[in-house]
Amino acid sequence: MFESAEIGNSLPREAYEREMPRLRTRLIELQTQLLERRATEVLIVVGGLVGAGRSETARLIGELFDPRHVEVVPDLPPNDEEASRPPMWRYWRQLPAKGRIGVFFYGWYAGALGERIGKRCDLAHFDARLEGIKRFEQMTVDEGALVIKFWFHLSRKSQRRRLEELAADPETAWRVTKEDWAHAKSYRRIRNVAERMVRETSTGAAPWFVIEGEDRHYREIAVARTLVDEISRVIAAQDEAAHARRRRRNGAKTARLSPPPVATLGTTDVLSALDLSLSLSSKDYDDELPRWQGRLAELSREKKLRKRGIVVAFEGYDAAGKGGAIRRVAAALDPRFYRIIPVGAPTDEERSHPYLWRFWRHVPQQGRMAIFDRTWYGRVLVERVENLLAEADWRRAYAEINEFEQELVENGLIIVKFFLVVSPGEQLKRFRAREKVPFKRYKITPDDWHNREKRKDYDTAIIEMVQRTSSELAPWTLVEAENKRFARIKVLKTLVETMEAAL
Amino acid sequence: MFESAEIGNSLPREAYEREMPRLRTRLIELQTQLLERRATEVLIVVGGLVGAGRSETARLIGELFDPRHVEVVPDLPPNDEEASRPPMWRYWRQLPAKGRIGVFFYGWYAGALGERIGKRCDLAHFDARLEGIKRFEQMTVDEGALVIKFWFHLSRKSQRRRLEELAADPETAWRVTKEDWAHAKSYRRIRNVAERMVRETSTGAAPWFVIEGEDRHYREIAVARTLVDEISRVIAAQDEAAHARRRRRNGAKTARLSPPPVATLGTTDVLSALDLSLSLSSKDYDDELPRWQGRLAELSREKKLRKRGIVVAFEGYDAAGKGGAIRRVAAALDPRFYRIIPVGAPTDEERSHPYLWRFWRHVPQQGRMAIFDRTWYGRVLVERVENLLAEADWRRAYAEINEFEQELVENGLIIVKFFLVVSPGEQLKRFRAREKVPFKRYKITPDDWHNREKRKDYDTAIIEMVQRTSSELAPWTLVEAENKRFARIKVLKTLVETMEAAL
Repeated sequence: MFESAEIGNSLPREAYEREMPRLRTRLIELQTQLLERRATEVLIVVGGLVGAGRSETARLIGELFDPRHVEVVPDLPPNDEEASRPPMWRYWRQLPAKGRIGVFFYGWYAGALGERIGKRCDLAHFDARLEGIKRFEQMTVDEGALVIKFWFHLSRKSQRRRLEELAADPETAWRVTKEDWAHAKSYRRIRNVAERMVRETSTGAAPWFVIEGEDRHYREIAVARTLVDEISRVIAAQDEAAHARRRRRNGAKTARLSPPPVATLGTTDVLSALDLSLSLSSKDYDDELPRWQGRLAELSREKKLRKRGIVVAFEGYDAAGKGGAIRRVAAALDPRFYRIIPVGAPTDEERSHPYLWRFWRHVPQQGRMAIFDRTWYGRVLVERVENLLAEADWRRAYAEINEFEQELVENGLIIVKFFLVVSPGEQLKRFRAREKVPFKRYKITPDDWHNREKRKDYDTAIIEMVQRTSSELAPWTLVEAENKRFARIKVLKTLVETMEAAL
Repeated sequence: MFESAEIGNSLPREAYEREMPRLRTRLIELQTQLLERRATEVLIVVGGLVGAGRSETARLIGELFDPRHVEVVPDLPPNDEEASRPPMWRYWRQLPAKGRIGVFFYGWYAGALGERIGKRCDLAHFDARLEGIKRFEQMTVDEGALVIKFWFHLSRKSQRRRLEELAADPETAWRVTKEDWAHAKSYRRIRNVAERMVRETSTGAAPWFVIEGEDRHYREIAVARTLVDEISRVIAAQDEAAHARRRRRNGAKTARLSPPPVATLGTTDVLSALDLSLSLSSKDYDDELPRWQGRLAELSREKKLRKRGIVVAFEGYDAAGKGGAIRRVAAALDPRFYRIIPVGAPTDEERSHPYLWRFWRHVPQQGRMAIFDRTWYGRVLVERVENLLAEADWRRAYAEINEFEQELVENGLIIVKFFLVVSPGEQLKRFRAREKVPFKRYKITPDDWHNREKRKDYDTAIIEMVQRTSSELAPWTLVEAENKRFARIKVLKTLVETMEAAL
């Protein structure tokens, strides 16, 4: 989910200076409209990792608008009056009136986040609190509020570098506290808790916007653009509703779809950040292959596995080498241990059940492995790109898939998901080669050529898929598959290491 | 919530024999349409209290339709193959294909219900499982299924009588097991768990239908009518969607509102079941009043109360005597201990915040009492009846109010809710009397006369309010207020006993 915010997004100073004044003017105009209408209160939640620019952003938002109509609510421990009432009481009191803007530093997330990171509440209680938060946000939105939530993220390496920079500069050293360093040490835990929170509470009513926080210019433009987009959207929706009311009374509100969670300014993404030049020589390959296959074979006989089970999911561009990778995995295993499930167009029986039914059928028993050659992700890849179903349907599939995988993981299954990536050039070469080799010719169909033309649409779908469904429970592994040997070893190695970590 | 299913609903044999054949014919017609369309699978969940006719109904449903296209799924412990997979796997496998009907005895609720009743899972885990169930149901509905859930309820007294009847008859005695008697003993606990489940999982997508189960005729007609209504509704919605598609592509699904949870055949309801002839003589009143006021005064100085707090909510028909009852409560208390909050039309400041904001403001501190003269229920009473807001808005208020009260209770507050009922005749007498007494004349306004005319609409709103918001956490007490003395003592007594039970 956070992968797209760990690739070092940045923006040159000139671009920043060109765009920021325009965005500010626009935001002041929008604020004036909010004040004139007095129909919407704007609730902005700011949270994120240490060093990702949370407090700078809270301050920035205060400055982007006319500050007389903005209330910044810090994250302080409750005072006596607040402590003697239910925890939500203080947030209700702090709600800005319609037309005004409230900036909440962590806001109603502070308690649940802090307790979960500090291990003072278990997963079920954490989820229950998130449910409560969702209902609170849904209610404020139903009552006319606009809720915008920012989460500032950066990679572990960037966080360390940033803290060191701040500590080295005498002017900023005071800002780096002992707790900051302690937080940096629990990077993994905090990232996982935050990821669950963002995943569970990103709703159509109140989505999270995840922003990579290292580069100030990038961060600020992303924030300002999001604010402009969201406030304009609400104002436009009000105008439309007013129109609709004039035409027919009682116009139903149009449901809003949750936007992709990670804001990108269109510069870099997880796909273009891949280094497709990675490769492995034949000699190294011949050394590594038996080594990893041997470890995999051993693991498959591991006693602890008897109460677990493994789901391996393969997706990838056409001709990226899924089949070859699957064969290298299978070759290491006892045939009674695994089953390969090739996923094609659904049968009639499958069509007469809910979409996920066909995959539930193939969930492996304890102690077994199921290898899916193409998967449930078809819903948000091919079916999305080819317009085989309505947007609302593939949008809800992200949440359904996350639920599905969460349920498997909570019941002891280990999920490993691979997406194999080749460049368009290499893909073309492989297509041509297949056409020439008689026994490989069946592998290439008119569909393949058609899919190539839609590469850009597929890329968009893949990036959103990774943003929405790569979770701490079932992360995606993007495999650089330009060199088949490199890809196969990466697949085997990832599988072995994930299994070792889980057992 | 279950009050409407504890009033001894019944139906005469002749009415049953007149209506049942018509309903059966209609159900067979509807089933034929389901089979022709193959667009919808019908999932029927049957659950309820011992003795309320659960198994008879499961059998009945099998007989109402052509049994070749109905699958009845019993509530058995998982077999080996099922036990080695995630718990939901078996329910996925059991889903009927589109066009067919599945009857699930407890279905996916079996595990969570059993564990919570057996105290093998805490409230947070129970809620988490209910959330999972809601998502599962939402997903099947999004994929075209129709989910109908029946809960068969009866009062504690009726349950006991029914079990004794069954045990006495040699032909049915074998059906009453030891566990049944054990369940009857835990009536209160099971009722509370079931109530939470019904409340949390009654969604627009998959509502519960609560049916009083004692009288066979009543029960079967209620079930058959519900089946006819629900299946016709889905078929009509499909026809309409097909029409809409022809007009414009990509027609958004219309959101469905959850129906009132307790099915009634329009014979009796919680209001008409009240005995308004209850009264108290002046002499008894003069004895009882100081007694209960004394106990209340003592309780208000109770040490345990310092970490708690009390919310007393008064609603009722005009001239039912709310003011008088509130004065009798207040008279017993130290003025620093309580605050009376009269609720009128919202101020401008209140209007510029979400609806519940004005009530959150007045949540009492620990150790204090807040007495609301009219309450947050105005949303689903006067605002509903007078069309002051859209149906969708007052419908969502039920869930919001339940959340609000749940949050207060979970944070140590005690909630006591009174609704005072007078007959239209007595009300008229009181109005006339007020007109004659100069210092009471201000109490009667043209609104009051207007409200009298809308009595029937108010009754409907009150019955639904009790069905939806009387919970084990914050139950409604309906007060027979035809005799003011009786009403005042009932209010004081209920308040004292609720506080004693909670402390």
